[in-house]
Amino acid sequence: MAQSGAGMAADIAEQPEGYARLLEPASIAAIAQVAAVIAERRPRHVVFTARGTSDHAALYAAYLTEIRLGLPAGLASPSTITVFGARPDLSEALVVGVSQSGGSPDLTEVLRVARSAGALTLAVTNAPDSPLTQAAELAVDVAAGHERAVAATKTYTAELLALLLLVEGIRAGNGVLPAEERAALETLPELASRTLADPVPGQLAPRYRFADRMVTTGRGYAYPTAREAALKLMETSYLPALAFSGADLLHGPLAMTDPDVPVLAVVGAGLGGAAMRDVVSRLGERGADLVVVGPTEIGGAAAHLTVPEVDERYAPLLDILPVQRLALALALARGEDPDAPRGLNKVTATL
Amino acid sequence: MAQSGAGMAADIAEQPEGYARLLEPASIAAIAQVAAVIAERRPRHVVFTARGTSDHAALYAAYLTEIRLGLPAGLASPSTITVFGARPDLSEALVVGVSQSGGSPDLTEVLRVARSAGALTLAVTNAPDSPLTQAAELAVDVAAGHERAVAATKTYTAELLALLLLVEGIRAGNGVLPAEERAALETLPELASRTLADPVPGQLAPRYRFADRMVTTGRGYAYPTAREAALKLMETSYLPALAFSGADLLHGPLAMTDPDVPVLAVVGAGLGGAAMRDVVSRLGERGADLVVVGPTEIGGAAAHLTVPEVDERYAPLLDILPVQRLALALALARGEDPDAPRGLNKVTATL
Repeated sequence: MAQSGAGMAADIAEQPEGYARLLEPASIAAIAQVAAVIAERRPRHVVFTARGTSDHAALYAAYLTEIRLGLPAGLASPSTITVFGARPDLSEALVVGVSQSGGSPDLTEVLRVARSAGALTLAVTNAPDSPLTQAAELAVDVAAGHERAVAATKTYTAELLALLLLVEGIRAGNGVLPAEERAALETLPELASRTLADPVPGQLAPRYRFADRMVTTGRGYAYPTAREAALKLMETSYLPALAFSGADLLHGPLAMTDPDVPVLAVVGAGLGGAAMRDVVSRLGERGADLVVVGPTEIGGAAAHLTVPEVDERYAPLLDILPVQRLALALALARGEDPDAPRGLNKVTATL
Repeated sequence: MAQSGAGMAADIAEQPEGYARLLEPASIAAIAQVAAVIAERRPRHVVFTARGTSDHAALYAAYLTEIRLGLPAGLASPSTITVFGARPDLSEALVVGVSQSGGSPDLTEVLRVARSAGALTLAVTNAPDSPLTQAAELAVDVAAGHERAVAATKTYTAELLALLLLVEGIRAGNGVLPAEERAALETLPELASRTLADPVPGQLAPRYRFADRMVTTGRGYAYPTAREAALKLMETSYLPALAFSGADLLHGPLAMTDPDVPVLAVVGAGLGGAAMRDVVSRLGERGADLVVVGPTEIGGAAAHLTVPEVDERYAPLLDILPVQRLALALALARGEDPDAPRGLNKVTATL
């Protein structure tokens, strides 16, 4: 068991199948039904609440909500409600709890308080019978199946896809996605399989075997990927990894980057990727050792984790895959057990 | 000039004076007037936008807004508006840009878009004639005076105090603080002076001279302090420092902590501090090298940065002071120039 990483490897490998499962007519219809209820209730703003990896899925959904729905969206600190007893006016809000286990008491409490304040509440979980689901008026099951490793991989990407389907369903009004969107989404399982077949992530691990830290960066939809990349490297390899939005990196922590600090930059094909070009060139000026995740080769980069070019809303579903494999390979190279990181449990109870 | 740190030292030393200046009747009245306008306009929610150090002041204000005003508050990613062209419905929002220089084009664009969408807009800056101030309907001047070092210290705490005065003024309705609140606030300059007189931060620097990373943590009002502590250590000493809310730390990155990784925990006297006790004991079980910032000694901690006990809303105005001094001393111990960190400019233009 120790240091096999077989559980995490299996979880990672199942992601294309997970995408296909969520795109089956029954799952699509279930999410469409929830989306239609939300569209009809017309919330004025959306509050997400989540922790750890699920917080990055929530951040992705917040970008989608603002850009695709034109609704203000934010991530709530549960502690304002659970520790400080705040009772913000959520009567016109949609409050969404995102959690693979659905077992975190603080998120459940936030949804309970929000619901009693008149908010529309939704639980997005991999556990349809969980306390979080029971506390919410609406529920989406991300249907990722049992996750073997403590570090979340397939539940993260299933949350991303479920939240994408949900937001686009709300945008459609009746929950039903336009035919061309659905056709584009249906290419994702195959694109994910192709991405996972790339041998580069495994080959790259020895390069970072002795790195003592890493910086990750991205903008827009790619920023949650940078955050999740940093967390995954930390959880499995204990490699201190600092995530910054490309803009924030230029505002301060750029001082941290030098040739000894590898930088993983998510540079997609869309607007967020275009906004990263300046960041990448500034990093280049500083001689940073750069790994680029994205569809296009970038001159001066030390390595490239290739993903197919897709609409930038879909890119987070592919960009994280080679990074998960890099985290797994690096953990094994460093003699760690990525299936059971030190000090972590699958369900974390915080109040 | 190189490695003197005289500029940063002078900025740090001026903070008690900065508090006193903001608490003078003219400043109090100017902020009260802005608060009264906001109270009268009754925004339904508050969106903050900021970058770098000012983002931590904005996060503090978001906690205050939810807990003290019962209004949902969030931090906006400027890129949804500036890069992706999102036009969220902000007609019932107060949108607050926080920036020492007021010169960041992306924040200015967010305020311009928000104002044209009918939002009430406010610029909180140390630069009353800046583009950000000109873009906003309302303005608060934090009046910190010229900041010598690139790393922000006195502008950060001036932003904190100005935002506290503003939120409490909105809570009062007419902008005028209750007498007992004002009396309590008037003790802060003296308490800040006393905090800055403590020799411990300077003595502590050699202890971390060869640390290769650090973790910082806090909950509630103390979480922005943990974030700012991490950024300050990174900007000035290039010490990779990872900030986590106490709750998030238990959800994953706890795996990162071991006896080789010093942890700086902000543990105050109020509810946020009480919620940190479990985190501190879990860190203790893992043998973490713990520095505690707060009024109370904690058994097992390797070091203690003492601050006077105050209402937990005020604690961020004191807790950061010994940390700024530690960052300065550590930078000097590591042979860096904290007044002009590599790769950083005082005004950073991102779009």
